[in-house]
Amino acid sequence: MPTLTLGQYDLVYNALSFTIATMGAAFVFFLLARNTVAYKYQRVMVIAAIIVGIATYHYVRMFSSWSAAFVNSGGTYTPTNEIFNEAYRYADWLLTVPLLLVELVAVLSITGERRKGVIIRLVVAAVLMIVLGYPGEVTLDVGTRLLWGTLSTIPFIYIVYVLWRDLGVVMARESPEVRVLLRNLRLLLLASWGVYPIAYLLPLLNIDPAMALVGRQVGYSIADVVAKPAYGLLIYAIARIKSEEEQAIAPVGALVATD
Amino acid sequence: MPTLTLGQYDLVYNALSFTIATMGAAFVFFLLARNTVAYKYQRVMVIAAIIVGIATYHYVRMFSSWSAAFVNSGGTYTPTNEIFNEAYRYADWLLTVPLLLVELVAVLSITGERRKGVIIRLVVAAVLMIVLGYPGEVTLDVGTRLLWGTLSTIPFIYIVYVLWRDLGVVMARESPEVRVLLRNLRLLLLASWGVYPIAYLLPLLNIDPAMALVGRQVGYSIADVVAKPAYGLLIYAIARIKSEEEQAIAPVGALVATD
Repeated sequence: MPTLTLGQYDLVYNALSFTIATMGAAFVFFLLARNTVAYKYQRVMVIAAIIVGIATYHYVRMFSSWSAAFVNSGGTYTPTNEIFNEAYRYADWLLTVPLLLVELVAVLSITGERRKGVIIRLVVAAVLMIVLGYPGEVTLDVGTRLLWGTLSTIPFIYIVYVLWRDLGVVMARESPEVRVLLRNLRLLLLASWGVYPIAYLLPLLNIDPAMALVGRQVGYSIADVVAKPAYGLLIYAIARIKSEEEQAIAPVGALVATD
Repeated sequence: MPTLTLGQYDLVYNALSFTIATMGAAFVFFLLARNTVAYKYQRVMVIAAIIVGIATYHYVRMFSSWSAAFVNSGGTYTPTNEIFNEAYRYADWLLTVPLLLVELVAVLSITGERRKGVIIRLVVAAVLMIVLGYPGEVTLDVGTRLLWGTLSTIPFIYIVYVLWRDLGVVMARESPEVRVLLRNLRLLLLASWGVYPIAYLLPLLNIDPAMALVGRQVGYSIADVVAKPAYGLLIYAIARIKSEEEQAIAPVGALVATD
């Protein structure tokens, strides 16, 4: 771990805390929003809540790990014996990225056997992407990082391809209002998922190790906020509109079983 | 406690944290899933939630115990005065294993007196299995470990036998869809419960004590994730299908008593 300036240490510290607050708030919101969509979309909100719940846990752990990994020694933050545990992110992604994909498929009008096939392929690709990325993340060797990063990119591209193709097919079937939201969802997916490889590759850019560490942590945090709570809000908007279109908004306390 | 490398210490540390997140997420999910199954299967989801809730608590404790049991002394983790408390696992199993068996019997269509008899026999066998295993777990003597391990295996085999026999009888009565899930449940039970004796016997294999400790903790954690949340998801799938088959999905706020 490199030595950090006060500003560098604080930036990550506050970014992690901000993310805890955002994930926690989203957890409460998605739980409460469940009863405002039709019965068939309620599981989508449950998945959204569980994703940000898992992220809240991991950000609390990362916050503690970050605080313990550095000590203020008169003007700079020097590393302690406790090493900042980057693995929390990978444990988080291992659980949440497959769930994000399940959430997406669940809100789309993909039915029956087709849906099961898509989910299995996406989940396997997501797990591969994360597991292959990890060895590169924890190494200090540039070549090793590049190798695993490249391997991890293959399932990443496959996921983007499947989503693009299947979102395209589904979009054609939806109302104009839902279509706009699905287009935004595509852009949001690309914008947020695109940040991860950039943050991942920061240590390769021959910049100051402290800057690379700080940039990576802040980058991952911003990407997580976009990819989980903001993404969940868009999914919620889609579920709301589709509930209205299908005239099946569930009055609280009298849910209609339409699934 | 043996001295560990950074990688060995981290592996257990992250496996324990990952399990906390998984158990906690499953707790939220099973609680929320309760209202999506028929009234007669809702208690199954309550039991599933309680099991992973108990496990979440014990894994939080184990995580703290593990962190306190070792200190980073420049490149290796050496044992502190605090001994890692293996008893948390046995306390957890003493509570959760009987509940796992009750959960299984509750989702099967075993009725009346027959059900009560099966539950009592399974619970007694489960308690015996865990209580007899513990003295062997905490000893350093190979012979003692083997003796108690063998004694503990007798009720274990009895449980597997009863489950196989009764699952077979019940499977013949169910729809093809449920039958496939019950077959998967059998395989999952065998795969997850089979890991425990292997992890238990690791210290007997004359391998490096650090490797044996790490292998045992990671093995137990994986087995717990399969035996509790993954098992609960399969049970939930069975409850969902049976609810639909019996056309008795309970609308929230107007629960239908069908039991």
